[in-house]
Amino acid sequence: MDYSLAWLSYRRLPFYEEKEYFQKLYVQGEDGITSSAVYEICRGAEEILGIRTEIVRLPVSVGNEKSEVKEGIYLFLDSNGPSGGGYRIFEEKGVIWITAAEPEGLLYGSFELIRQVQRERTLKGLELLRIPENPLRMLNHWDNLDGSIERGYSGKSFFFRDNEVLVGKRTEDYARLAASVGINGVVINNVNVTERATKLITCEYAISLKRMGEVFSKYGIRLYLSLNFAAPIELGGLATADPEAMEVREWWQAQMKETFRNIPSLGGFLVKADSEGRPGPFTYDRTQAQGANMLAEAVKPYGGIIIWRCFVYNCTQDWRDQKTDRARSAYDYFMPLDGDFHENVILQIKNGPMDFQVREPVSPLFGALSKTNQILEVQIAQEYTGQQKHVCYLIPQFKEILGFHTRCREEGDTVADIISGRCFSRRNCGMAAVANTGSDSNWTGHDLAAANWYGFGRLAFEPSLSAEDIAREWCECTFGTNAQVVHAVCKILMMSWPAYEKYTSPLGIGWMVNPNNHYGPSVDGYEYDRWGTYHRADHLGIGVERGKAGTGFAQTYLEPNASIYEEAETCPEELLLFFHYIPYTYMLKSGKTLIQHIYDSHFEGVEDVEKIIGLWEGLRELVPGEIFDRVKLRMEHQLESSLEWRDQINSYFYRKSFIADEKGRTIY
Amino acid sequence: MDYSLAWLSYRRLPFYEEKEYFQKLYVQGEDGITSSAVYEICRGAEEILGIRTEIVRLPVSVGNEKSEVKEGIYLFLDSNGPSGGGYRIFEEKGVIWITAAEPEGLLYGSFELIRQVQRERTLKGLELLRIPENPLRMLNHWDNLDGSIERGYSGKSFFFRDNEVLVGKRTEDYARLAASVGINGVVINNVNVTERATKLITCEYAISLKRMGEVFSKYGIRLYLSLNFAAPIELGGLATADPEAMEVREWWQAQMKETFRNIPSLGGFLVKADSEGRPGPFTYDRTQAQGANMLAEAVKPYGGIIIWRCFVYNCTQDWRDQKTDRARSAYDYFMPLDGDFHENVILQIKNGPMDFQVREPVSPLFGALSKTNQILEVQIAQEYTGQQKHVCYLIPQFKEILGFHTRCREEGDTVADIISGRCFSRRNCGMAAVANTGSDSNWTGHDLAAANWYGFGRLAFEPSLSAEDIAREWCECTFGTNAQVVHAVCKILMMSWPAYEKYTSPLGIGWMVNPNNHYGPSVDGYEYDRWGTYHRADHLGIGVERGKAGTGFAQTYLEPNASIYEEAETCPEELLLFFHYIPYTYMLKSGKTLIQHIYDSHFEGVEDVEKIIGLWEGLRELVPGEIFDRVKLRMEHQLESSLEWRDQINSYFYRKSFIADEKGRTIY
Repeated sequence: MDYSLAWLSYRRLPFYEEKEYFQKLYVQGEDGITSSAVYEICRGAEEILGIRTEIVRLPVSVGNEKSEVKEGIYLFLDSNGPSGGGYRIFEEKGVIWITAAEPEGLLYGSFELIRQVQRERTLKGLELLRIPENPLRMLNHWDNLDGSIERGYSGKSFFFRDNEVLVGKRTEDYARLAASVGINGVVINNVNVTERATKLITCEYAISLKRMGEVFSKYGIRLYLSLNFAAPIELGGLATADPEAMEVREWWQAQMKETFRNIPSLGGFLVKADSEGRPGPFTYDRTQAQGANMLAEAVKPYGGIIIWRCFVYNCTQDWRDQKTDRARSAYDYFMPLDGDFHENVILQIKNGPMDFQVREPVSPLFGALSKTNQILEVQIAQEYTGQQKHVCYLIPQFKEILGFHTRCREEGDTVADIISGRCFSRRNCGMAAVANTGSDSNWTGHDLAAANWYGFGRLAFEPSLSAEDIAREWCECTFGTNAQVVHAVCKILMMSWPAYEKYTSPLGIGWMVNPNNHYGPSVDGYEYDRWGTYHRADHLGIGVERGKAGTGFAQTYLEPNASIYEEAETCPEELLLFFHYIPYTYMLKSGKTLIQHIYDSHFEGVEDVEKIIGLWEGLRELVPGEIFDRVKLRMEHQLESSLEWRDQINSYFYRKSFIADEKGRTIY
Repeated sequence: MDYSLAWLSYRRLPFYEEKEYFQKLYVQGEDGITSSAVYEICRGAEEILGIRTEIVRLPVSVGNEKSEVKEGIYLFLDSNGPSGGGYRIFEEKGVIWITAAEPEGLLYGSFELIRQVQRERTLKGLELLRIPENPLRMLNHWDNLDGSIERGYSGKSFFFRDNEVLVGKRTEDYARLAASVGINGVVINNVNVTERATKLITCEYAISLKRMGEVFSKYGIRLYLSLNFAAPIELGGLATADPEAMEVREWWQAQMKETFRNIPSLGGFLVKADSEGRPGPFTYDRTQAQGANMLAEAVKPYGGIIIWRCFVYNCTQDWRDQKTDRARSAYDYFMPLDGDFHENVILQIKNGPMDFQVREPVSPLFGALSKTNQILEVQIAQEYTGQQKHVCYLIPQFKEILGFHTRCREEGDTVADIISGRCFSRRNCGMAAVANTGSDSNWTGHDLAAANWYGFGRLAFEPSLSAEDIAREWCECTFGTNAQVVHAVCKILMMSWPAYEKYTSPLGIGWMVNPNNHYGPSVDGYEYDRWGTYHRADHLGIGVERGKAGTGFAQTYLEPNASIYEEAETCPEELLLFFHYIPYTYMLKSGKTLIQHIYDSHFEGVEDVEKIIGLWEGLRELVPGEIFDRVKLRMEHQLESSLEWRDQINSYFYRKSFIADEKGRTIY
């Protein structure tokens, strides 16, 4: 095998004291998912504990009568147990019970049980009840059929190569890893659907996609595809893709009938329409709702859903135009349509109004949309956060987003409340992450980037987990429980996002990256471009005025957020330059001027990277040599890159402002 | 035919009065070049005048005895006539004589005769003596074997496609066009020689290259190839390409024996070594002379030459480093080697010390090197001058370069004097241009860009021609003699380079382009990069200090140039920012401050483009519709692009300096 199993690469624990539970596994049911649960427990027991578990099949009629049970583990389907993928694990008198209303719960419980062993936790007296908060917990892969990955930083696709779909051992191992952290939906192809990818819905790919869907299903994962809104033209030979045209509707209905017959386990489709050159309903003067609903009708007979991205904006903006504001786009396009979407349509909303920057406010659509299914889209592919060459653990960012109070009601108004469905009593909702995996032997290029994959799944399942808890979990599963390792790795992870923010673009302004590849500093890289991403820096200050005097974006938030963002004095400082043009001499709450804050934070960011390297250095003998070296190499590059960021940003602002650094450090 | 013949697309002139000369053509000799001369006269006569010329073959013994001649045209080889490709044309008593010492002269004379007809000049009493000043007049094509062209802006290669060499009708028409303006050497493949192109010297390409060489030879053109210094490793399987290693020398000797046997007409090789990642003698701690001489020895038995580019510099510079100066590189590397190169080595020196910017000083190697063969390299591919989307007639720039007084001696010290060989009595020297042609139907993308191809050839042949004369010639051949057309087109051409300079980077600072593609404005695009190309702009001023207090580059020139460049007061203002860091408030000779000059010239540049469009608009009915529309479309794009340049540059400097435009125009 030319790849590791990441956090499922089990280490042998010869001294683990509670092996005995694993001698016998009692199980009802022989469905695919339960079989996977059995397989996972047996595999864990064998690889970690060296035990060959005896599997005892129980008749389905055997009920709850605990008097009859013997020592061992019981996988027990209980219609009164936790549902929706939830599970209960408890130990009682030498017996470990994993109970759930559905097989998915048994699978997740089994992974959790093994995780407890990996983490060397005691099982005696164990009592866990876990119910996933988000109904949909999805990964979006931006994989192309030629094997490349858009914004992929970990090698090639393991789903596609040379226009073929790949289904094999790696597909199954991928499904194991994803399911182990609770992922239950996967979009395998790029949202930019062109050329051959348009044909994924045709019979040409039916056999391989059906097989992939089956592999996924065994692990409780639904297969989804991205689709091309112009398929009626490109595949069907129609003259139009107008969602209101009868022939278009009929074409989609016929095509979906065929597609779902070909791939029975298909969950539905992800659609990027009217964005960055992709076709969509706007071409035909139709609304986004008309486009989405038309597709929703076509997939409805098969239980399919349409996940419609809200990433719609004018990408041919004139940089001279200070009125148009890309940050407003999603809100302006979709807010008026609240309530117009069919029940099997879900709007997938990026966490912020721009595009996965290191710091953005939360999208104002959250809390504003009350009659629409919503998925929160985040990006664990580190497109703008170091591209898996820099360590940047993003779970703390996601936690902040989930915890944001939208003020849509007095309580239970956070993003987490909304996307779980409980705020507005909706069922089709959840979280999606743009995936960070590829064919690299460690799946994620940077070994520490696997914490983002792991963490996203765990967080989507259980948003109340803290970022530190997740880091520790991942670290213990990946590197074992050595306290020094866990301490250092967790510290590295928890330092990493703040460090990245310090040495890159300041206080929410974002961008300042090289165009196209989005890597490395270029302060003016997007300043005079068409993408609506400006910093407006001049001799006296920097920032985009998004209050009432500017683009008015601050007013798209519910009160009191709108008022808080409206004024520089009340605006959270980490977002200050996102919402306001601020003079370099403006005094921050820290008592530093803005320009001094820029200088200081950039020096600090580099120092943080040096600390991170120091922490990693201390693990030389404590983590596998291959991983140590691989991470070390990337950290050395990160240091060099962070120096480049520091010096370019500081030089840019010094040359522009001519305000010297108070501490007299070298600025070029 | 899916392409035009550019300036050889003859128009019928039914009213031309001096057709009679063309009834008969008397010719001695049947060599290939003379045959081409005959063909060209006959083809011109037929297409322009509608005459089928009778060819009368004269015995070679017939001499100068004019008593015996009859009316018509005589192509006459005369060993006492002009040599080196020179010719004499004169009319006497109804006879036009074209005499020359070599067939090349007859060919060039024939093209000139046809040109006279195209331009509707009277032939009666004609008397022309033309001897090409530069022995080598070369085009360098940067064509790759896959059919792409590096810095190609006119379609694909017509020399290569899918790793095959193309030889056909277009090759011949290309040779006709090139020969018609006096080109006598062509390098067909990219100086960056990688992968398959390395094999061009092997028997794999022998048949097709031999054929291409023959097509070229008929038009007096020698075929040259670019070669890969690492070929001994890549082709020969040796462990080294060290020019002092015996096995390397032997490998090259054996390979060259084979190559010249395969392609007997081959002229030699162009080499880019130790530059931008290309291998070279530095890899083995050898000098550029050791590398070049080793190859020169290998090609010497076959009369071959090695053209060695001086484009050697550190392309991994740290932008923070203000001491290293790319401008110095060629001088520092090559000046100490003056006199060390073999007679059949020629150093090919770019016109300026950087890289074909819209404005640069002349390379200080010219005048400094006195014991070395030299070729002046210019670029008609408009890499940094609008990429054949903008009209930018470069002959005025080349004229300035040729006319530059190097001060290597009291008189006859210009670049033209040096590269013609007369200054230091050398034979292997001349001019080369990076070509601007491709598979586009008009050869050069922009129809007006053909004037650069035409002009380069004519200028290399006859450097004393003025840029206006050349523009007029080209225009009359291309569009005919209508005075309005000639006036407008010449005016457009002559305005175009100054206009481009006005709206792009100011006063010799260069760059400010988008990285990689080198198109469109990005003021800081290369400012924090590794290429040694900086403007060092800050709040107070801009420019690179290259006097003694800076990098000392000014001192690489001979006196009094060194002193002139040393001081801002005496430095020619168009080069002010190349040589000095200058405050925005510095007063220029025009009475404007530097910043006001930047603002004004950028507004003016756009106004010039508007004037250019107005001039072209006036030709709607006077030039072929297809050409009119094609040029119009490009000019509209040029206007948009020039606006972008203007606004970005002005906004950049306004935001940085905060000095307002005196005229209160909109700056963003």
